[in-house]
Amino acid sequence: MPAVVILGCGGVGRALLKQIAATKLTVAAVCDSKNALVAANGAFTAAQLSAIAEAKAAGKPLAVEGATVVPVTDSAGLAAVLKQCKEAAGGKCFVADCTASDATGPAMAEAGVAVALANKKPVTSSIDLYNKLALENPRNFRNESTVGAGLPVMAMLRRMVTSGDPISRVAGCFSGTLGFVMSGLEAGKKLSDVVAEAKSLGYTEPDPREDLSGMDVARKALIIARSMGWKLEMDDVKVEGMYPPEMGQDKMSVDEFMAALPSLDADMAGKAQAAAADGKVLRFAAVVADGKCLVGLQSVPKNTAMGALQGTDNIVEVISSCYPVSPLVIQGAGAGTETTASGVLADLLELADIHA
Amino acid sequence: MPAVVILGCGGVGRALLKQIAATKLTVAAVCDSKNALVAANGAFTAAQLSAIAEAKAAGKPLAVEGATVVPVTDSAGLAAVLKQCKEAAGGKCFVADCTASDATGPAMAEAGVAVALANKKPVTSSIDLYNKLALENPRNFRNESTVGAGLPVMAMLRRMVTSGDPISRVAGCFSGTLGFVMSGLEAGKKLSDVVAEAKSLGYTEPDPREDLSGMDVARKALIIARSMGWKLEMDDVKVEGMYPPEMGQDKMSVDEFMAALPSLDADMAGKAQAAAADGKVLRFAAVVADGKCLVGLQSVPKNTAMGALQGTDNIVEVISSCYPVSPLVIQGAGAGTETTASGVLADLLELADIHA
Repeated sequence: MPAVVILGCGGVGRALLKQIAATKLTVAAVCDSKNALVAANGAFTAAQLSAIAEAKAAGKPLAVEGATVVPVTDSAGLAAVLKQCKEAAGGKCFVADCTASDATGPAMAEAGVAVALANKKPVTSSIDLYNKLALENPRNFRNESTVGAGLPVMAMLRRMVTSGDPISRVAGCFSGTLGFVMSGLEAGKKLSDVVAEAKSLGYTEPDPREDLSGMDVARKALIIARSMGWKLEMDDVKVEGMYPPEMGQDKMSVDEFMAALPSLDADMAGKAQAAAADGKVLRFAAVVADGKCLVGLQSVPKNTAMGALQGTDNIVEVISSCYPVSPLVIQGAGAGTETTASGVLADLLELADIHA
Repeated sequence: MPAVVILGCGGVGRALLKQIAATKLTVAAVCDSKNALVAANGAFTAAQLSAIAEAKAAGKPLAVEGATVVPVTDSAGLAAVLKQCKEAAGGKCFVADCTASDATGPAMAEAGVAVALANKKPVTSSIDLYNKLALENPRNFRNESTVGAGLPVMAMLRRMVTSGDPISRVAGCFSGTLGFVMSGLEAGKKLSDVVAEAKSLGYTEPDPREDLSGMDVARKALIIARSMGWKLEMDDVKVEGMYPPEMGQDKMSVDEFMAALPSLDADMAGKAQAAAADGKVLRFAAVVADGKCLVGLQSVPKNTAMGALQGTDNIVEVISSCYPVSPLVIQGAGAGTETTASGVLADLLELADIHA
């Protein structure tokens, strides 16, 4: 019986715990940032999975009757747990990484397990780690939920790459938060007002600069470029954020930043108006083409799929040999715990099919 | 070594022959409507595959040095060839069906091979055959190129269905020809003019009623419904074509039909104007929802992905538990021999991964 190990008990991990109970997969262990909970006989029951999710949602420690709690303090400790689960399962171990941790990637690589990632860290740190996880054995690697939540972006790119359809350009909007801001600018709102609105609706991180810096989009651009076989590092991605360096996290507090935002309104309104005068709209986009990854504001024609995008939806447009002019487009909700967990679950089921 | 058998040497089959040469897959046999060409040692070389494609493109019979020609006159004969290839390959045989034949489905089911289909017939005839090919062993079944050419529509639906994301509605435009006609109507052209234009550009079948009847779209709607587990037959799909029964293929010739088309112009222009007055546009769409498949003209809001569609692109919109309001959308070229062959090739590579 193959073992599934779930790393992370935040929103996505807990949603996955509940979704997985309805499938043929069996969960052998669940880990949070402190402990691994290992099922006594190699498989939790659906009731146990539900109990674990509920306990964690209530802020309680990771525990359930009839399971062993193993403290996990570092990457080596996690690797040891994964190796143990893999051995107990006769060598077949599928790890769902729903954390935001740096430590899981090296542990998964060392344990030699198959992975389904929501966590972007393992695939955006060194190219060496990426090679170990993704390239050395593609049959052991899935990462749908690292880009566009559950939207089948990575699955589509994999199909195109493996079938030898040369991709020349991938462009997309991968931040629901920045999509909301762009729709607001398009409707004539001030940048400072629409960011404040997004913050009050909970669309931004507590510090909106986490979104406005564009770094999350940059990580997704890197993941896409690497999936096409490009040997790029994070430093190779050119990112132009939505605010100047003097308003950075090392220079002012969140409150000071929000107070300073109106100073950017006029410039941004000017850019939006210039785009509109040209039949275009502003989008905060990633463009992966010609060996380069560019992330930042773009003016795109209104009558394209990306130009017609509204609100928090994500979109990706791909130009390839088979789609030379009118791109292949996927769009939809690119965030949400259920959706992200669904993407991880679909990846796990593909791994299970491959290793059946 | 697993055996790939390619059925059909039309445009898609020939494109596949050339694409497959660049992969790890090995082709053991190629069949046209009269013969099977079986490689002497179980695998054609890239040069042989290329020679076969070129000979067929030049209208020559299926033959290449060092291969056996086996006449195939019916489904039983094809099943015998498939069984032989499967046995020679140690039980692993992947069949790419690039024909438009009724005979291949029963043969593939009888031989118990894994299939990658561009041919819609095997999955739109009886539900019994569909069960045998698709449901009894999902690990042996792929059919990306039966809907939207190489667009990853079926792969996306499979991921959603297997991960337990309940789908409540699938709507789409799956005819590039009818998309071209709808864009023409939207631009104020007469129906008869835009159909004549599509015919002269080669976008329609020689008899445009093959497209305008909506039957090809209806087959795709049935395939989508069945992929969601619905036990429907072709008769359960409600199809409203673009012309009345008295203009059918049993009533008049192609020339008579084209001459009679202007009689429909006023009615169609009225529908297009009524839609426009309401902020909508006409689309020839398939809607799979509430246990029913409906195919025919729909008025859809201009500011949706389907409403913004232009030209010959295909589109599919999916509403599910994870995408409850803003749908998951895939759009792009839904026709073309290279694209269709790419979809079959990606399916074959997935089957090879699963059965490695």
